Amino acid sequence: MPAYRALERRFARLAALQDAAGILGWDAQTLMPEGAAGGRADQLAVLKGLAHDLLTGPETADGLAAAEDEAADEAAELGPWERANLREMRRAHIHAAAVPRDLVEASSRAVSRAEMTWREARRTADFALLAPDLAAVLRLQREIAAAKGAALGLAPYDALLDGYDPGMRRARIDPLFADLRAWLPDLVARARARQDAEAPALPLDGPFPVDLQRAIGLVLMEAAGFDFDRGRLDISLHPFCGGATDDVRITTRYDESDVTRALMGVLHETGHALYEQGRPAAFRHQPVGAARGMSLHESQSLIVEMQACRTAEFAGYLAPLLARTFGRDGGAWSAENLHRLYTRVEPGFIRVDADEATYPAHILLRYEIETAMIAGDLAVADLPGAFNDGLRDLLGLHVPNDRVGCLQDIHWPGGAWGYFPTYTLGALAAAQLFRAARGAEPGLLPALGRGDFTPLRTWLRHHVHAQGSLLETDALLEAATGRPLGTEDFRAHLEARYAPA
Amino acid sequence: MPAYRALERRFARLAALQDAAGILGWDAQTLMPEGAAGGRADQLAVLKGLAHDLLTGPETADGLAAAEDEAADEAAELGPWERANLREMRRAHIHAAAVPRDLVEASSRAVSRAEMTWREARRTADFALLAPDLAAVLRLQREIAAAKGAALGLAPYDALLDGYDPGMRRARIDPLFADLRAWLPDLVARARARQDAEAPALPLDGPFPVDLQRAIGLVLMEAAGFDFDRGRLDISLHPFCGGATDDVRITTRYDESDVTRALMGVLHETGHALYEQGRPAAFRHQPVGAARGMSLHESQSLIVEMQACRTAEFAGYLAPLLARTFGRDGGAWSAENLHRLYTRVEPGFIRVDADEATYPAHILLRYEIETAMIAGDLAVADLPGAFNDGLRDLLGLHVPNDRVGCLQDIHWPGGAWGYFPTYTLGALAAAQLFRAARGAEPGLLPALGRGDFTPLRTWLRHHVHAQGSLLETDALLEAATGRPLGTEDFRAHLEARYAPA
Repeated sequence: MPAYRALERRFARLAALQDAAGILGWDAQTLMPEGAAGGRADQLAVLKGLAHDLLTGPETADGLAAAEDEAADEAAELGPWERANLREMRRAHIHAAAVPRDLVEASSRAVSRAEMTWREARRTADFALLAPDLAAVLRLQREIAAAKGAALGLAPYDALLDGYDPGMRRARIDPLFADLRAWLPDLVARARARQDAEAPALPLDGPFPVDLQRAIGLVLMEAAGFDFDRGRLDISLHPFCGGATDDVRITTRYDESDVTRALMGVLHETGHALYEQGRPAAFRHQPVGAARGMSLHESQSLIVEMQACRTAEFAGYLAPLLARTFGRDGGAWSAENLHRLYTRVEPGFIRVDADEATYPAHILLRYEIETAMIAGDLAVADLPGAFNDGLRDLLGLHVPNDRVGCLQDIHWPGGAWGYFPTYTLGALAAAQLFRAARGAEPGLLPALGRGDFTPLRTWLRHHVHAQGSLLETDALLEAATGRPLGTEDFRAHLEARYAPA
Repeated sequence: MPAYRALERRFARLAALQDAAGILGWDAQTLMPEGAAGGRADQLAVLKGLAHDLLTGPETADGLAAAEDEAADEAAELGPWERANLREMRRAHIHAAAVPRDLVEASSRAVSRAEMTWREARRTADFALLAPDLAAVLRLQREIAAAKGAALGLAPYDALLDGYDPGMRRARIDPLFADLRAWLPDLVARARARQDAEAPALPLDGPFPVDLQRAIGLVLMEAAGFDFDRGRLDISLHPFCGGATDDVRITTRYDESDVTRALMGVLHETGHALYEQGRPAAFRHQPVGAARGMSLHESQSLIVEMQACRTAEFAGYLAPLLARTFGRDGGAWSAENLHRLYTRVEPGFIRVDADEATYPAHILLRYEIETAMIAGDLAVADLPGAFNDGLRDLLGLHVPNDRVGCLQDIHWPGGAWGYFPTYTLGALAAAQLFRAARGAEPGLLPALGRGDFTPLRTWLRHHVHAQGSLLETDALLEAATGRPLGTEDFRAHLEARYAPA
């Protein structure tokens, strides 16, 4: 299999370039001095251009054809992982080859510029400041979507989506989201009515010193199984999981008056990190060794943060840890109160602060808007109005300024169009996977009550992390849970947690 | 000048790759988790390979020939900076094209491996552990030296040297070092006799909390003119100045029982950083905008640390700052005592801890050894013996184990053969430049007494930093000081400071 082996070496070089870009991207969000932004944008654009060359060059195209010929031979020594790897190499090649190199670099530069402008625009709630740079990003995204769509035989938005969640299509999402839209408002209303009828949750009074918050974060990461020999925890304005293979770096931000945000942020990013650290070792620098897609990635963060760590059981472990660490006691620090605090339902402007019951509304809105913008049916100038109307219709909220409206997220200036739906698809998958894991491991919840993630992590490692990209998303979910992606388990989860009969 | 302009774009891409590698290298020394070392080595090897391709590819070779044709035309619009840039592009191309790509990558990987082994070997004082990896690095360095020598028409060691200090040759170094060897031992002996006859310097008693040491470091960097919008100060085991264009990152290490090491380390690296931050803005991503070479680079660190900051004047500024910051008083905290502490002469095993009078002996030894090893006249197995004999002959010291002997420096496992002499060439240049600066700026020393580096920095920016690589080292020194590199000013400086009549 000489052609296949040569491709493996080529894709290992590609992985090294992507890992290099991953660390440089992490650094830009955590440590980089401001004056270095222009140079960093150049560095990332050059790395992206070189990765693009490597992925699209004639050697790769010819090598793929030759390796596919090798694989067609029944007697080929290619196992199922190698065959899946070849499939993923081809997929990556088509995606990249569809987009001319100039367009890749132009988009990278436009994104770097728009992200910088966005920071200032958001700070000053000045959408007009961002509009020209955002229009440039959108224009280039539409060009990319059209080019990829032509190469993949897909509609433009589907072509973008396929880059984040291979195989995912609007035709698959629309009925799932329509279903959510049908029953979620009523569920939220019932959850809030029940909540209002109960005694209110007692607030945890600060201050919570940053070093103690960080110490608790490290304890929880360790408990969840984060490998500190191959990763770090740092600070950034916007928490994320980034870095490189064998160097998974998560970030959080600390607020001395609020212990929940950093703590739940760390647990969320730890879920992402466990996926990255659990990818199949033998293929970790190959396409088939990558995480399956962003929907499953989000399922792993939500399974830790939402499914596991907001249970009554985990609150029973966490409450005394917090009380001891901060030297507090009293009713606010009881497991019952903590659980109540961590399962409050409260519509709000900010997506990243939303509870799991109202979160999908933020995604439905963004999905509607970005599909329309990619289709050319909504102009940048009309974005704030559409956003504000949507938030009013979906959550009954009146946006006072764009800072808490359409300027709140980096995704659009950041060139991540087609990404938003994966958050809610991930929430559905998390519910489905957690239910299956509980069914298979009856000791899972009691273990969480002792701060022991072993049963959950072991199940996820086997059924999700170590699967890499061997299967498509639905096939992985069928193998792990018996069904393709659906809304049933998410609905059952929300009903049980927020509106029990 | 279309060919020249195309080359400029190509070299800007190269600079972006080198800057990316600079940040990744910095990260590896400061933050990277241990398990990421293998992956980082791959990333750096791939980046180096790509930079090598960019520098040696047919487009560059053809472009250089075409641009040189353009430049030969008298009517060409190329100014002196562009012409010098073309010269430096050609130089870089010859250096890179001389070494086959496989050899570049093999060397990069061997170095990554040897650096890792070296850490363990040094920790356990076990030279045998390092020997095989060091032999691999040396073998590849000799191949590189032979290949570059053939392309440049130079002896192998000169070819390596030329990579660190363009134009520098053994024939230029040997008489300078022979001169040092002739008068330094006597000067050191006189300095020590004088020192022994004086009242001993009082030690500064710790502890010195790390956060206060860091705060003083930041104050001094600010005073020296470090631009924090384009750089950072962090911690690493081995202090260095690295990072990227517009993102100059220096490091230090803190010892709570010793305030001098971190503080002088910060001043030293700040000298390097001022050079990097002061490079000519219009050409900062071009070869002619790079620092001239490592000898001049070291001159800039030594001019700050040794020439400026160990003067009686600067001690007069620093002593009260230290006393105030650490809340101390008494005779140990007087300017006189501080100056005495900072100008002690004391032969020791460790190069990086050496005072400026005994430091050249460490370099004479390493220069002798590495020239012999590159020539094939000294085997890796014989390195410890040669090192220990040399330290005995030069400084009268008996090396108790290889940790404080030939394992102390990273340079040889790190593949930096031909680098060591630049430290002492830098010390000579520093003395020469400082004397010229004082002559031109009579207020320079009094300003240092107020913590004001402006006269010194302004003079250096004009005569050194902003010159980039416009001139060769000797030509720059002639323009700035009236003479090519020599030992006279260094000798006069040491005599005046350590053994005044």
